[in-house]
Amino acid sequence: MLSLLECQSIIELRLNDISLPARPAHLYEPIRYMLALGGKRVRPSLVLLGCNIFSEDIQKAIYPALAIEVFHNFTLMHDDIMDNSERRRNHPSVHVRWNRNIAILSGDAMLIKAYELLALSSPGDWHKILPVFNKTALQVCEGQQYDMDYEQRIAVTIEDYLSMVEYKTAVLLAASLKIGALLGGAGEKKSDLLYEFGRNIGIAFQLQDDLLDVFADPSVFGKDTGNDIVSNKKTILLTEALSLASGKIRENLMHWLTVTEFNRKEKIDAVKSIYTALELEQSINKRIRHYHEMAIASLENLPAEPARKSELLAFSNFLIQRKK
Amino acid sequence: MLSLLECQSIIELRLNDISLPARPAHLYEPIRYMLALGGKRVRPSLVLLGCNIFSEDIQKAIYPALAIEVFHNFTLMHDDIMDNSERRRNHPSVHVRWNRNIAILSGDAMLIKAYELLALSSPGDWHKILPVFNKTALQVCEGQQYDMDYEQRIAVTIEDYLSMVEYKTAVLLAASLKIGALLGGAGEKKSDLLYEFGRNIGIAFQLQDDLLDVFADPSVFGKDTGNDIVSNKKTILLTEALSLASGKIRENLMHWLTVTEFNRKEKIDAVKSIYTALELEQSINKRIRHYHEMAIASLENLPAEPARKSELLAFSNFLIQRKK
Repeated sequence: MLSLLECQSIIELRLNDISLPARPAHLYEPIRYMLALGGKRVRPSLVLLGCNIFSEDIQKAIYPALAIEVFHNFTLMHDDIMDNSERRRNHPSVHVRWNRNIAILSGDAMLIKAYELLALSSPGDWHKILPVFNKTALQVCEGQQYDMDYEQRIAVTIEDYLSMVEYKTAVLLAASLKIGALLGGAGEKKSDLLYEFGRNIGIAFQLQDDLLDVFADPSVFGKDTGNDIVSNKKTILLTEALSLASGKIRENLMHWLTVTEFNRKEKIDAVKSIYTALELEQSINKRIRHYHEMAIASLENLPAEPARKSELLAFSNFLIQRKK
Repeated sequence: MLSLLECQSIIELRLNDISLPARPAHLYEPIRYMLALGGKRVRPSLVLLGCNIFSEDIQKAIYPALAIEVFHNFTLMHDDIMDNSERRRNHPSVHVRWNRNIAILSGDAMLIKAYELLALSSPGDWHKILPVFNKTALQVCEGQQYDMDYEQRIAVTIEDYLSMVEYKTAVLLAASLKIGALLGGAGEKKSDLLYEFGRNIGIAFQLQDDLLDVFADPSVFGKDTGNDIVSNKKTILLTEALSLASGKIRENLMHWLTVTEFNRKEKIDAVKSIYTALELEQSINKRIRHYHEMAIASLENLPAEPARKSELLAFSNFLIQRKK
């Protein structure tokens, strides 16, 4: 069995095999730039791990894994334009380093390139994986659209938020595992158990991320906390607070959501104390445990030797146990 | 044999079969809007005509034909953002009617949807058509990138311009015919002859379009002439003029290319008389005939009964003989 670390190394190495023409430079240079920015290569590694549970031969999963990494980076390139994010992994985003039009068109080419990589697998395999990929890719777009829609309004229910997270983040992790499993020869039922594992871990991961932005220890977390609070970003904390708060607490929260001039630290401290008063850390940790347990249950239900599942189990614990 | 008109009706009807969810409305509404704006449905009709040359059964070509129409409309949606085009077929462009982010994301979803429609054909057919589609889709992006690059500089050779036109416009017409032929059971060699026919007709069509913008009779042409001259758009006329003009004529042309304040009619008349002095109408008509003849030669070399090729022949004559 390959470890997650070994999968990451294989992907990092094989990303060099993606052939991109030299010209037009403004179309292909941003793709090379984006892929070279690094990242943890989690999704393609999950394709390989998913495959490796059912087959010793992971070669056939490599191009589909690269396809998923290229697709993921396409979404980042376009999301950065839409979200006005000027930095990506400590470097200028493509639309900042070049310009907006170049980021649109290079992203388009990247999406096509992802399909080209998928098409390098055997025709017998496309038949199984193309529908999963297509459905997931559309869901990721839907998730991004909901995310943009929700930025425009205060009233977002917890259910709305969770389903946005599911589409924007979780389904691609889930599909990575499912596609890997199908390539490894697993049937629909087994590959769906891995899908469920990935989906629940993905949701748990995003909720954890929301929580860390507020309650992490910055010296351990590696970046400033409170950014989501400052920008009124819809998170599980804000949506849950809006559903729970009433009376004075609600008034206070609405004040901080609508005030246009404020001291950064003051706003963070104020909203954080509202979250604390509403005991959100506890309730959200409970949600995270719930999704984590659902994920583990899917993995336990998967008929495969425990040794073949241990790497995914370790991965899920690693993701969720990122500490403050 | 189906006529072009029958193919257009079939496509128009079957476009209604494309299933798009209701929500998120901001993702799918612009796709419905774009597809409902009409257009001549030339590309998907060419898929059906290409198939029909080799097979009476065109059913299997319908989803791939719809895929190509959806792909084409995706390129229009994103091109309109990049080119700042506010109108599309007498209606507001998607980025104007909604906003830029919505046009980016809906376009992305449209590209995925195109692949989803391709995947509705039989797995045995994907094997043949997916590589053609992928290669063509990337070339279309390359063509758009070259087009944007060339906007930024004066020195564009005729070869540069022709290869940009080939990628941006001609290869999709060519690939439509080739994909249709492959679906109809034609081998590589026969389908490549149709590809060449489409590629040459596509180039001839664009050169004709460039010519009409300057020399057409507005009352017949249906829109104002001279727009390309006013905006310094790179066309076959401008690139050829830049390669031919010297001395006083070149000075005069450079003046009109660099002047920032001018009377519209005066600039059009001045540049048009430069084009006339350089005898561009004659030389470009010669180029158009050259590509048209190359197209016809490919069609003649195709081993199929004349009656099965007559619709394409009529189509090519119709495209090229659009009069002033």
